[in-house]
Amino acid sequence: MYLELLGQMKKLLGQLDGWLAATATHAATKKIDPNLFLGFRLAPDQFAFARQVQATCDTAKLAIARMAGQEAPKHEDNEATLEELQARVRSVVAYLDGFTAKDLADAGTRSITQPRWEGKTMTGADYFVEHAVPNFFFHATTAYAILRHNGVPLGKRDFLGKLTQTMP
Amino acid sequence: MYLELLGQMKKLLGQLDGWLAATATHAATKKIDPNLFLGFRLAPDQFAFARQVQATCDTAKLAIARMAGQEAPKHEDNEATLEELQARVRSVVAYLDGFTAKDLADAGTRSITQPRWEGKTMTGADYFVEHAVPNFFFHATTAYAILRHNGVPLGKRDFLGKLTQTMP
Repeated sequence: MYLELLGQMKKLLGQLDGWLAATATHAATKKIDPNLFLGFRLAPDQFAFARQVQATCDTAKLAIARMAGQEAPKHEDNEATLEELQARVRSVVAYLDGFTAKDLADAGTRSITQPRWEGKTMTGADYFVEHAVPNFFFHATTAYAILRHNGVPLGKRDFLGKLTQTMP
Repeated sequence: MYLELLGQMKKLLGQLDGWLAATATHAATKKIDPNLFLGFRLAPDQFAFARQVQATCDTAKLAIARMAGQEAPKHEDNEATLEELQARVRSVVAYLDGFTAKDLADAGTRSITQPRWEGKTMTGADYFVEHAVPNFFFHATTAYAILRHNGVPLGKRDFLGKLTQTMP
């Protein structure tokens, strides 16, 4: 199910791309500087919108790289416009597109670490469920919440996207 | 992996229980009516905090019930205090505790529907990945964001909880 959930992350990154477009349209309609949104945040000690988008991208990128035992491509975190954030999102979607189930065959038992854990490790299975999935949705939802709080016309369907449903 | 992810939902409900306690403590310290928080929201047309907590609970409860082909217990959505919201959260944690992997043996291929879908169905596998997981984290993160926006002293560790890590 790793690939299915990573596919859902990819889908949500596509929705996030749409939120960024909706933000640009909203700013144009209201004659607001669109790049003001990059600095908006919900609390003084919480990441601003741009960093939430970067963290959403990084969580998906690092999750698939670590689960596949590969080195993830680096991003400079220097996006200064909505369009640059869209490019960041699209580069991660394209990166996710390059993986298949075969790349994740050993994902659950792989030993995962990162510098801030100071040598501690997690199994791939635990890392994915306890760290990657919650962090991904945390940052994506916080990004969405910042836009909603600042008047961008989005609704729950823009979060979930189209569902795979069978007609009656 | 359904049970592992439902276990993560249970863990996050436990964290949410802690956020509610932290909110009560914060309100007492600041001499604020603690139940004001139930009505706070980030946008006029978004659910208020109490409804976000109820939706978080319901998403987990309905996910496991639907995936196991069972009828979920009903809740009245009449919580009026932080303590009543904590009781709601705990009742769902206890409900989740009653399930084992065996209950979810047919979960992926089960046909899932709900009244608002007007007869449309999803497979259990699609429903879980596209609907249950994103909705659960959406409402939990939005509840957290409302508290952070209103000054409750919480941080990312209160969201993730303790990780299953092995010491070096």
